Amino acid sequence: MAGSTYGTIFRIMTWGESHGKGVGVTIDGCPAGLPLCEEDVQTYLNRRKPGQSKFATARNEGDQVEILSGVFEGKTTGTPIAMMVRNTDQRSKDYSAIMDVYRPGHADYCFEQKYGFRDYRGGGRSSARETIARVAAGAVACKLLAHYGITVNAYVKSIGEFEIDPKRFDLSERDNNSLNMPDKVAAEETAEFLERMIAAQDSVGGVVECLVDGMPVGVGEPVFDKLDASLARAIMSIGAVKGFEIGDGFAAAKALGSQNNDEFYVDAYGKVVKKTNHAGGILGGMSDGSQIVLRAAFKPTPSIAQPQKTANNHGENVEIAIKGRHDPVVVPRAVVVVEAMTALTIVDLLLMGKNARLD
Amino acid sequence: MAGSTYGTIFRIMTWGESHGKGVGVTIDGCPAGLPLCEEDVQTYLNRRKPGQSKFATARNEGDQVEILSGVFEGKTTGTPIAMMVRNTDQRSKDYSAIMDVYRPGHADYCFEQKYGFRDYRGGGRSSARETIARVAAGAVACKLLAHYGITVNAYVKSIGEFEIDPKRFDLSERDNNSLNMPDKVAAEETAEFLERMIAAQDSVGGVVECLVDGMPVGVGEPVFDKLDASLARAIMSIGAVKGFEIGDGFAAAKALGSQNNDEFYVDAYGKVVKKTNHAGGILGGMSDGSQIVLRAAFKPTPSIAQPQKTANNHGENVEIAIKGRHDPVVVPRAVVVVEAMTALTIVDLLLMGKNARLD
Amino acid sequence: MAGSTYGTIFRIMTWGESHGKGVGVTIDGCPAGLPLCEEDVQTYLNRRKPGQSKFATARNEGDQVEILSGVFEGKTTGTPIAMMVRNTDQRSKDYSAIMDVYRPGHADYCFEQKYGFRDYRGGGRSSARETIARVAAGAVACKLLAHYGITVNAYVKSIGEFEIDPKRFDLSERDNNSLNMPDKVAAEETAEFLERMIAAQDSVGGVVECLVDGMPVGVGEPVFDKLDASLARAIMSIGAVKGFEIGDGFAAAKALGSQNNDEFYVDAYGKVVKKTNHAGGILGGMSDGSQIVLRAAFKPTPSIAQPQKTANNHGENVEIAIKGRHDPVVVPRAVVVVEAMTALTIVDLLLMGKNARLD
Amino acid sequence: MAGSTYGTIFRIMTWGESHGKGVGVTIDGCPAGLPLCEEDVQTYLNRRKPGQSKFATARNEGDQVEILSGVFEGKTTGTPIAMMVRNTDQRSKDYSAIMDVYRPGHADYCFEQKYGFRDYRGGGRSSARETIARVAAGAVACKLLAHYGITVNAYVKSIGEFEIDPKRFDLSERDNNSLNMPDKVAAEETAEFLERMIAAQDSVGGVVECLVDGMPVGVGEPVFDKLDASLARAIMSIGAVKGFEIGDGFAAAKALGSQNNDEFYVDAYGKVVKKTNHAGGILGGMSDGSQIVLRAAFKPTPSIAQPQKTANNHGENVEIAIKGRHDPVVVPRAVVVVEAMTALTIVDLLLMGKNARLD
Repeated sequence: MAGSTYGTIFRIMTWGESHGKGVGVTIDGCPAGLPLCEEDVQTYLNRRKPGQSKFATARNEGDQVEILSGVFEGKTTGTPIAMMVRNTDQRSKDYSAIMDVYRPGHADYCFEQKYGFRDYRGGGRSSARETIARVAAGAVACKLLAHYGITVNAYVKSIGEFEIDPKRFDLSERDNNSLNMPDKVAAEETAEFLERMIAAQDSVGGVVECLVDGMPVGVGEPVFDKLDASLARAIMSIGAVKGFEIGDGFAAAKALGSQNNDEFYVDAYGKVVKKTNHAGGILGGMSDGSQIVLRAAFKPTPSIAQPQKTANNHGENVEIAIKGRHDPVVVPRAVVVVEAMTALTIVDLLLMGKNARLD
Repeated sequence: MAGSTYGTIFRIMTWGESHGKGVGVTIDGCPAGLPLCEEDVQTYLNRRKPGQSKFATARNEGDQVEILSGVFEGKTTGTPIAMMVRNTDQRSKDYSAIMDVYRPGHADYCFEQKYGFRDYRGGGRSSARETIARVAAGAVACKLLAHYGITVNAYVKSIGEFEIDPKRFDLSERDNNSLNMPDKVAAEETAEFLERMIAAQDSVGGVVECLVDGMPVGVGEPVFDKLDASLARAIMSIGAVKGFEIGDGFAAAKALGSQNNDEFYVDAYGKVVKKTNHAGGILGGMSDGSQIVLRAAFKPTPSIAQPQKTANNHGENVEIAIKGRHDPVVVPRAVVVVEAMTALTIVDLLLMGKNARLD
Repeated sequence: MAGSTYGTIFRIMTWGESHGKGVGVTIDGCPAGLPLCEEDVQTYLNRRKPGQSKFATARNEGDQVEILSGVFEGKTTGTPIAMMVRNTDQRSKDYSAIMDVYRPGHADYCFEQKYGFRDYRGGGRSSARETIARVAAGAVACKLLAHYGITVNAYVKSIGEFEIDPKRFDLSERDNNSLNMPDKVAAEETAEFLERMIAAQDSVGGVVECLVDGMPVGVGEPVFDKLDASLARAIMSIGAVKGFEIGDGFAAAKALGSQNNDEFYVDAYGKVVKKTNHAGGILGGMSDGSQIVLRAAFKPTPSIAQPQKTANNHGENVEIAIKGRHDPVVVPRAVVVVEAMTALTIVDLLLMGKNARLD
Repeated sequence: MAGSTYGTIFRIMTWGESHGKGVGVTIDGCPAGLPLCEEDVQTYLNRRKPGQSKFATARNEGDQVEILSGVFEGKTTGTPIAMMVRNTDQRSKDYSAIMDVYRPGHADYCFEQKYGFRDYRGGGRSSARETIARVAAGAVACKLLAHYGITVNAYVKSIGEFEIDPKRFDLSERDNNSLNMPDKVAAEETAEFLERMIAAQDSVGGVVECLVDGMPVGVGEPVFDKLDASLARAIMSIGAVKGFEIGDGFAAAKALGSQNNDEFYVDAYGKVVKKTNHAGGILGGMSDGSQIVLRAAFKPTPSIAQPQKTANNHGENVEIAIKGRHDPVVVPRAVVVVEAMTALTIVDLLLMGKNARLD
């Protein structure tokens, strides 16, 4: 095992580099009987595709998914589901400018030190294309969660200093703008700011927020496989994520216990519910039945067009200007990746929980 | 597997409840030849012991560790190292006040829904005593890391609104105050604030920061087992943690790429190093050779003495006042737990990385 | 991980050496709600205890199990169940005769080469005492299987050339003789033979057979986690086992398809059953609903009193005579170990199978 | 996880059905720097291909492997190696004769009970085509073992009552006959017998033996991940295997300790070696430096042309005659599969063993 496996019950293994033949994923452990077709997966892949707006890279690849196994007569069979997306945009390029240079903010130096050499044609396994495999598997996980009445929705909460206004929050608005912000006004203001970033040959970070509704109580295992711990790993495993919060997150570190504790009460239907949700839907590492709220902080895109100082693998200090089109911000395209990783994590713990007590 | 296993190569399994016979851990995968004695472990356990100050719970248990296996003639043998701490403070108590009540901010409700019933005598597996097993295993991990020249040091960065001043930062000061703050002035001011919290029968959250020095380049696996993702899971699996950051963390979401990228350069010894460390020592999920910096946000202790409204398992709305002494803040005792989980994570990925390339 | 972990859902980790403080096991993943007490486990441990007859080693240790966690008010809580048996027979001995010698048929040489040194006081992790942990965990697995109507029974089928007669097979007879043979006559004849072995300072091998009744259809995962493959690993992991068979085993390699295929038919209750059971209850790696039949071949006890030639770790050829009492045959005490490993394997795959299809 | 994952360090996940789009495998954990090309893998795949002789099925598929990722400039990069073989022989057929019938000796009934329905077009995941993925991954494992000086060679030892004569054993002869027997005379005699089997519309079982040379001492983990236990699982996971032996296997159960113990001695070079090899190269679950010898017993091919009685999923007793060409014996094509599983197992434990002691 070397890092490309995720999950215990609903387990995936991903493969593929940005400049190889393609990227793919195999799911080992999807229950039999789930209706599934390529369109179910393609819908999710289309949401992460580059080239949808001027703020995303122009590389317009088809990214058509092919389901290779595990589905028969429109339903999953319980055997491994292999999926693949061929790389179609592999124009031969001149890599001489970057093949021996360590790009700042990238993993070039680490790859070379760890493995002895590296695929210098792009980010290799650190490329954003790697997330195609996550999203394809995540689409299946979302479909399985839907079977249990659980829905996962992420969106851009902020880009740089620009943030959505909770009073204007409208999830349906998210898909109407290329920034995936559920606030039309914020999206427009942010778009103007990003124009200035492009002009300045710079980039900026942002925050993605994700909500999970319909959770049963008790998903997540005590101690090490807590739901929040598992989500943290899942989200932090997405390239460029530098911070993770559940519920009030870092704000809870400044709160008092009397404020932060969520009061339980018995509602009109006799159900135990919480009055507030500072906990973000998780207590003791287990879902408590309320909405799960998580946030991921993404750093600015490290590839920027302005000249940067760095070193190369000949032991020289050099200056580089990274060519090609790069997103000035990564969060809009990361929204569906956050959904995918959230769904993959929840589905795995949900299935694991089926053995929590004797039936 | 139900959540009490951690690690792949250096793997631990923990057990024990707050009011059972004890807590313990078994390590399967510690290399042979490491000098180890009970004192090595006891030193770490003493750092998490309650009763060290008026801000920590008075339950003064011995918490003496016993190494049960895996060590022969003072060295690890390569076979499982079992360790146990007996619970000694098991005075029979009257649990009738809490046995059917869902304490706010606690996992009582989740445990009951998940397993059908629960050990109502304390937090069970959610008790702070569970961390004894983590710290015992972490002590061994720290000793193994030291063999490779790696050191792990955590401390309290803030409690409520009170924060250490970077200009006064002095790690050696950490062990001189019961709050484990590496800043004498901040510790004194915070202590006064905590007195007021106790008087108000309230609690408060805080932030623990952890530094790792001496890291080689390339620890961490691309994609899902990234070093930062693994650390996030490790730290978020500690009870009460609601947020995690690596390097600049959430601040990176507001930064520009031109600011956030760390410039590489060749130093006087011909070594490639970074000028800044916004990344917190990790690029592409692999250590980059600079200091690792991480932070964990802890929520306020949920057990507070003031009356709280809640529900019980008879479907009634009730009010409770949680008796007994409880820390008004959890972070001072959590410092060594953060070190333990950090060490366990790094040692596992370090050993895994030995197979990254052909020898 | 270094070999002392077993199972995925019902996962155990064992520890302990023959001459350390004790041996133990932790179970992570036993569902909540199973009635369990120490007597349940002790009953199984008593069946593997030495000193029950003149054919077993005289070391009469109490082997009293202590359940340390995971049980509350007589039922499992869903959290880890830790169990321990203290070593009580640790008289200080003179090991100078064997501490630098590689005993033939033992793992001394391998341990020393692999780990750099070894615990020379006994077999260490290769000691028969290691099986205490397996049997303790196996007792819990058997209790869980009983909840699902599944029973596991092993017995000695043969010792040397002496074999039970199928016509005299009577399982209830197994516990009436110290050889655990379900055939009184065969047990008596074999006992005489073993007297001669003791006189000759020699030992002999044997075969244990195990039957599993009450299996539902479909336990076992296709491809690598087939039920038979998992059982093979489980049984072969018991020290001294050199061969494994399911159903007709090696005899199937000489059979014709027309003989070996088990005919399906619909019985009087409308149920699909098999007329014969050459397959031993497993088809395509999954249980087929009929009785599971497996066999394990054990080599002769390697510790024999007669002088043997060997080498030591000073590079010298030497002669040794292994002192102390040793069983002339290992299979009678191995019967309960085979049951334990069979139960641990089936319970793990049974629980895993709960996610085979959508509910 | 549902059975299609194998290995811990050198981990593979396989996918694909006999009548789907293809079969494939991804390797996660192959060290970087191993020279690898498609020809390396194709050589192994060609050895399992059907249609090489009249005793193998006529389905002549190309089985051309495509390496999709993980190799750059002719060397493995340390990232996942995905490989795929497209199914090319998917003529539309009439499955009405078998789609609701449980073929004797096949897993049809188990699949249907476990998953609720099944892919009736062939064996699905139980098809012999599933082994393509094992062999492709095994080819990479063999190449990696060769780097460490380890070679793996299997051959047919017996078919029905026909067995190779040890006096005529010549491994180079193995590839000269379509039965993969390292004994020309035995191969000719067996071929005549198989002609009679075909005429009789029957099939027969056989035994494959596998030798591993060049093993270092100490590969394999004590207790559950013993080398022999791991090999047993690996080999028993191949369809149709009903028995497994290491070294003397079942014969050891009839032997005396004085015969079965292998004497150690110091050879002329000062090296500790064994005079005999009853143990088959493994002591205490670890390689002892001598040749590893294992055997697998395969049952007769269950698909036979003569009419058979069985049941269908409408609850009726029926008779079927399985059409199409089927091998009268499976062992010749299984030889390379046994090599593959042996290599995958050894390479995984070899890499795991790198952390056995401090470096």
